[in-house]
Amino acid sequence: MPQGQPAVVPDDGMTTRQRRNRPLLAVHTGPGKGKSTAAFGLALRAWNQGWPIGVFQFVKSAKWKVGEENALRVLGASGEGGTVAWHKMGEGWSWVQRDGQDSNEDKAREGWEQVKRDLAAETYKLYVLDEFAYPLHWGWIDTAEVVETLRTRPGNQHVVVTGRNAPRELIDAADLVTEMTKVKHPMDAGQKGQRGIEW
Amino acid sequence: MPQGQPAVVPDDGMTTRQRRNRPLLAVHTGPGKGKSTAAFGLALRAWNQGWPIGVFQFVKSAKWKVGEENALRVLGASGEGGTVAWHKMGEGWSWVQRDGQDSNEDKAREGWEQVKRDLAAETYKLYVLDEFAYPLHWGWIDTAEVVETLRTRPGNQHVVVTGRNAPRELIDAADLVTEMTKVKHPMDAGQKGQRGIEW
Repeated sequence: MPQGQPAVVPDDGMTTRQRRNRPLLAVHTGPGKGKSTAAFGLALRAWNQGWPIGVFQFVKSAKWKVGEENALRVLGASGEGGTVAWHKMGEGWSWVQRDGQDSNEDKAREGWEQVKRDLAAETYKLYVLDEFAYPLHWGWIDTAEVVETLRTRPGNQHVVVTGRNAPRELIDAADLVTEMTKVKHPMDAGQKGQRGIEW
Repeated sequence: MPQGQPAVVPDDGMTTRQRRNRPLLAVHTGPGKGKSTAAFGLALRAWNQGWPIGVFQFVKSAKWKVGEENALRVLGASGEGGTVAWHKMGEGWSWVQRDGQDSNEDKAREGWEQVKRDLAAETYKLYVLDEFAYPLHWGWIDTAEVVETLRTRPGNQHVVVTGRNAPRELIDAADLVTEMTKVKHPMDAGQKGQRGIEW
């Protein structure tokens, strides 16, 4: 419930307002569906608040999640809410000017370096680091460095990380963690993904 | 993965295309965050396909999820994707003309009656029945009737039901079920919900 009461009120010297407006680190993990879709749903709320939103897609395919991307681009350009900047590893990142012979590991690290620069500059108020749990899980990016960077990020910047195998240290550092559990999926019954539902 | 291969190919006489394009019943349930946000994320994909979308919010508060609502209204009016019709129980439903002294139970049933009419008329291609699991769980609406109506719905209409305690019969009838599990929530640490994140 949006107006719910917390179970405990900590003795941390902060007012309710101060505590309420702390920047959040959210993690959507687990084997089920909805990790990214819930993050993009969160982006709708942020957009409605007029917040600048930065999406960093840490996936190989530039086509994946094109529905969410198109929708958020239209919203960002509508002039009615916040702005949306959408960055795709699958297209080699928009800020990388060179030829693009880097490995996926290199590209993932380039993405993280840009996130660090944007966090330092307070470029966005919501960061969607989509599928970012994978390069952490695979050891391509150092989780301890990510946790420390997020822990010390300036201002009031919210960060959502999605991906199946979020490392324990990231979960420990997060304020809000949801695990999506697969109860049933049509692929189990031999059905392939379909347009408009899966992408 | 959007292009993933199913684990089994059933001997059901259908082609892959026929099987792929079967209408889906999805359920997002469990105590964690993201059930509705993932449903609205799904709506972004449907919008991107140009599908007509009907949202039925089975919640008391008319203000709840105003971020998602505003975003989908802007998208629906953009002329670039599908249309969005947003119906709110919290405002007494737009199609109910009378004074609005009905109980919440009556209102929930009125909402379901409209969903039935729209399914019969094939009004939408995606139905988001947000928080619809609650009136089922509370026995306000008969789950067996809902399951039968959904099982026999005509055409190629996709339905997503959200809500914490989805009845077992609905889960059994669904094609795609995700349970959102709460791992950690800021309210546990004494933090209240904040604008742009929770609503």
